[in-house]
Amino acid sequence: MNVRAGIVVTGTEVLSGRVADQNGPWVARSLLESGVDVAHITICGDRPADLTAQLRFLAGQQVDLIVTTGGLGPTADDLTVATVAEFCGRALHLDPELESDIAAIIARWQRRRGDTRTDTPALRAGIRKQAQVPEGAQPIPPTGTAPGMAVPARRAQSGSVGTPAVLVLPGPPRELQAMWPAAMSSRPVLDALSARTEHRQEIIRAYGLSEADLAETLRTAEAGVTGFDSLEITTCLRGGELEMVTRFPSDTAPAYAQLTTLIAEHHGQQIFSTDGSTIDDHVVERLGGRQIATAESCTGGLIGARLTDRPGSSAYVVGGVISYANEAKTDVLGVPAEMIAEHGAVSEQVAAAMAEGAAARLAADVAVSTTGIAGPGGGSELKPIGTVCFGVAIAGRPTVTVTRRFPGDRTTVRALSTTAAMHLVADLLGNEES
Amino acid sequence: MNVRAGIVVTGTEVLSGRVADQNGPWVARSLLESGVDVAHITICGDRPADLTAQLRFLAGQQVDLIVTTGGLGPTADDLTVATVAEFCGRALHLDPELESDIAAIIARWQRRRGDTRTDTPALRAGIRKQAQVPEGAQPIPPTGTAPGMAVPARRAQSGSVGTPAVLVLPGPPRELQAMWPAAMSSRPVLDALSARTEHRQEIIRAYGLSEADLAETLRTAEAGVTGFDSLEITTCLRGGELEMVTRFPSDTAPAYAQLTTLIAEHHGQQIFSTDGSTIDDHVVERLGGRQIATAESCTGGLIGARLTDRPGSSAYVVGGVISYANEAKTDVLGVPAEMIAEHGAVSEQVAAAMAEGAAARLAADVAVSTTGIAGPGGGSELKPIGTVCFGVAIAGRPTVTVTRRFPGDRTTVRALSTTAAMHLVADLLGNEES
Repeated sequence: MNVRAGIVVTGTEVLSGRVADQNGPWVARSLLESGVDVAHITICGDRPADLTAQLRFLAGQQVDLIVTTGGLGPTADDLTVATVAEFCGRALHLDPELESDIAAIIARWQRRRGDTRTDTPALRAGIRKQAQVPEGAQPIPPTGTAPGMAVPARRAQSGSVGTPAVLVLPGPPRELQAMWPAAMSSRPVLDALSARTEHRQEIIRAYGLSEADLAETLRTAEAGVTGFDSLEITTCLRGGELEMVTRFPSDTAPAYAQLTTLIAEHHGQQIFSTDGSTIDDHVVERLGGRQIATAESCTGGLIGARLTDRPGSSAYVVGGVISYANEAKTDVLGVPAEMIAEHGAVSEQVAAAMAEGAAARLAADVAVSTTGIAGPGGGSELKPIGTVCFGVAIAGRPTVTVTRRFPGDRTTVRALSTTAAMHLVADLLGNEES
Repeated sequence: MNVRAGIVVTGTEVLSGRVADQNGPWVARSLLESGVDVAHITICGDRPADLTAQLRFLAGQQVDLIVTTGGLGPTADDLTVATVAEFCGRALHLDPELESDIAAIIARWQRRRGDTRTDTPALRAGIRKQAQVPEGAQPIPPTGTAPGMAVPARRAQSGSVGTPAVLVLPGPPRELQAMWPAAMSSRPVLDALSARTEHRQEIIRAYGLSEADLAETLRTAEAGVTGFDSLEITTCLRGGELEMVTRFPSDTAPAYAQLTTLIAEHHGQQIFSTDGSTIDDHVVERLGGRQIATAESCTGGLIGARLTDRPGSSAYVVGGVISYANEAKTDVLGVPAEMIAEHGAVSEQVAAAMAEGAAARLAADVAVSTTGIAGPGGGSELKPIGTVCFGVAIAGRPTVTVTRRFPGDRTTVRALSTTAAMHLVADLLGNEES
C-alpha cells in the first residue's frame, strides 16, 4: 500500500488569491517523486482555528504525513508551530542550541548590512519564538532564519486519538526547497514513509496531438496492454504541448514499455520527448554550438526571454531585435518597406526577411522570427486574430516560413507562438542532412 | 456577520503539482470582491471519495457556499456533478432543454470544423451525461459545452444534516470566468449571500519599502487609528514591490482614510499607487504618446515582453534590441568596443550607450537599457552576481544611469531587474518639468 500525504499551505495572501502558491505544487511533485501519494492539498489563512480544522481533516483522512508550509516567522501572527504542537498534543520547549544558531545567523546578516541594533528586546523575543520545539520533534536547520520541525506520528491509544507525522516548513520557496533533503531524511519523516513501495514516473511530451486522439489510443491500450491498470496516467495540455505523466510501481515497468510502444506507433510524428527533456533542451542540443538570434514582432521579446532563461545561454544566444513597429522592421532588420506595403507586416515574406535580417545584422548562424496578430485589435477577415507567420533562417539553407492560426486571447496567442517558434527551430535543426 | 465560502479545486494534474491552478485564486479574489470571506481552499484529485471528504469538511466548517471547479467533462472520469448531487442528497435527472442546448453547441462546432460525425452514440452519451441536473438545482448556461450547477442550501432537519449552497463550475479558466456573472446572480447563490455586509477593498503599492518598516508603521497605526481593528490588512512582497491590501466594512472607511494618511507621512517616497494602478499603467500614462524602445542584455527580452503584453501597445512601443553578446551591443546599438573593453559590458557607461543607441537606432523618444550579471556564472568580487546597470535616455534630457545589486537566483534577478526598469522609466518620466 502506498503512503498517503496531505499538504497544508498557510497564508492569507495565498488564500485570497493575490499570490500564486508555489509551495503546494512543488511539495506535491517532490512527494510523488519519492513514491508518496498526495491525497489532499488545503490552503488556509492565518487563523489558527482554520489551520487546526485542516489538520484534523487530514488526520481523519488517514494520511501518514502532513507537510505544512508558511507561518514560521518571528512575529506573533506566525502561529504554525504552536498550532501544530497543540494539534499533536506536544508541549513546546525552548531549544537553547537552536536559539543560539538563529541568533548567530541574524548577527551575521546584520554585520553584513552594517546594522548595529544586534540585540534589541524585540529581536531576542523573535529568536526565542523561532527556537520553540514541540516535545519529541526534530528541528530542521534553517536556511533563512526559520527552522523547520519534523514531528513524529503518534499511534491512537486508549483515551487519545492518533496523529500522523507532521513536517513543518517555512513559506519562502527557496528556503523550503533548500531544507527539503534534510527534512525528508529526518527520523519522523523516514518512519512515516517506511511503508512506501518503489514507484517510477515517466513523461511523454507531444506537440500537435489532441487530448481526444491520445484518449482513443489509451482506450486501445486498456484492452491490449497487460497490467494497464497498474499505470496511473494523467494527461495535460500546456502551451500547445500535450504531456502524459505515468506513475507505476517499479515492478510493472513492462506494462509501461508496452504502452509507449503503442503510443509511438500511433503518434510517433507528434512525440518529441520520452526522457523528460523539453523542447528548450532540444534547441540547445541541436544548435551544437551555433549562434542563434531572434526577430520578434507579436511575441515582443518572449522568445528572447525564453532562450536567455537558461544559465549559460550567452554561449549561443547573440541577441535579437524586437521589431514591433514597421519602422523597426525596415530600419533595423532591413525588411523592404515595399514588401510590407505589398504583403502586409503579417506575411511569410516579411517573416522570412525578418529572420534573414536578424541573422545578417547579428551575425548569427540561426535566426527565428514572428510576426502576427495577437489581438484584441488588428484582425481582418483574411488575417484574423491569432494569425502568426514564422520564419527560420539557417546558414547555408533556404529560409523556411510557416503560417499558423492560434485560438485564444492575446496572452494565449503570444504564449502559443513562443512555443511554436521553439518547435519550429528544433524540428528544422533536427532535420539537417536527413 | 460575513458570509463564508470554501473553494474546492478538482484535478489530478493540479493536485500533483504539474499544473498551476488558476481557478482557486481567481474565484477567491472574485468572492472577496463580492464581500464573501474565503475560509478554505482545498485541492483534490479525480477520486470521488476524496471530493466527498472535502465537501463534508467544508460543510462541517459552517461555510455558507462551496464553489467547485473542474470535473464536468463528457467522459466517465468527470464525476463532480454526480458526487455533489450525492453529497447534497439530491437525485440527478436529465434536463431535455439543456441536452438540446449542448447538442446544438457541439453541432455548431463540428460544422465549423467540417466534421461529419455529428451524432455518434459516444457523443450522445457524453451530452446526456453533461445534461444531468441535481434535483432543485439551477443550471448555469455553458460557454464551452459543460453547464454549471447552482445547488440550493438545505437546512439541517430532524434526521438529516444540512448542506451549504454549492456552485459547480467547469475547469477551463476562460469558461469559468465567462460563466461567473450568471453563476453569482443565480437564485441559490443569491440566497446564500443574502447575509453579507458590504465590504470595500483598497490597495496601496510601494517600491523600495521593506515589510519590516511597514509593519512598524502599522504598529503605530494600531495605537493611534480609531477603528483600526475593523481593517483586515495583508501585505505581500512581489518582484520588489510591496502590496498592502485592506478589506473593511464600508462604514469604517474613515479608519482606512486615517491609516492611509499615516502611511503617506511615513513612506510617501516609496508609495507609487493608492488607486489600484500598476507601474505599467504609469509608464503608459506618462509616455503620453511618446514612443519607447528597449535595449536588453541580462533581461533578454523580458522588458519588451512586458511592455507589449498590453493590448494596444503598438501605439507606443517601437521595439527593442536584445543585445546579449558584446557584438550585438557594438554592431546593432553602436556601443564602442573600446568602451566595453575599458569599463566592462556591465557598466553604467555601456548602459547609457545602449539606451542612447536604441533611441537613435529605433527613432524612439524614450529608451531603457539593462546590462547585468544574472548568474549563476559571471560574477566577480567587484561585480558580484545580481549587479545590474540601467540606462534611460529621454529625448531632450541627459541620459540617466543607475546600478543596483539584486539578491536571488537567475530568475529572481531577471524579474527584479524588469520591475526596476519599469519603475526607473516611470519615475524619470514623472519628474519632468518638476
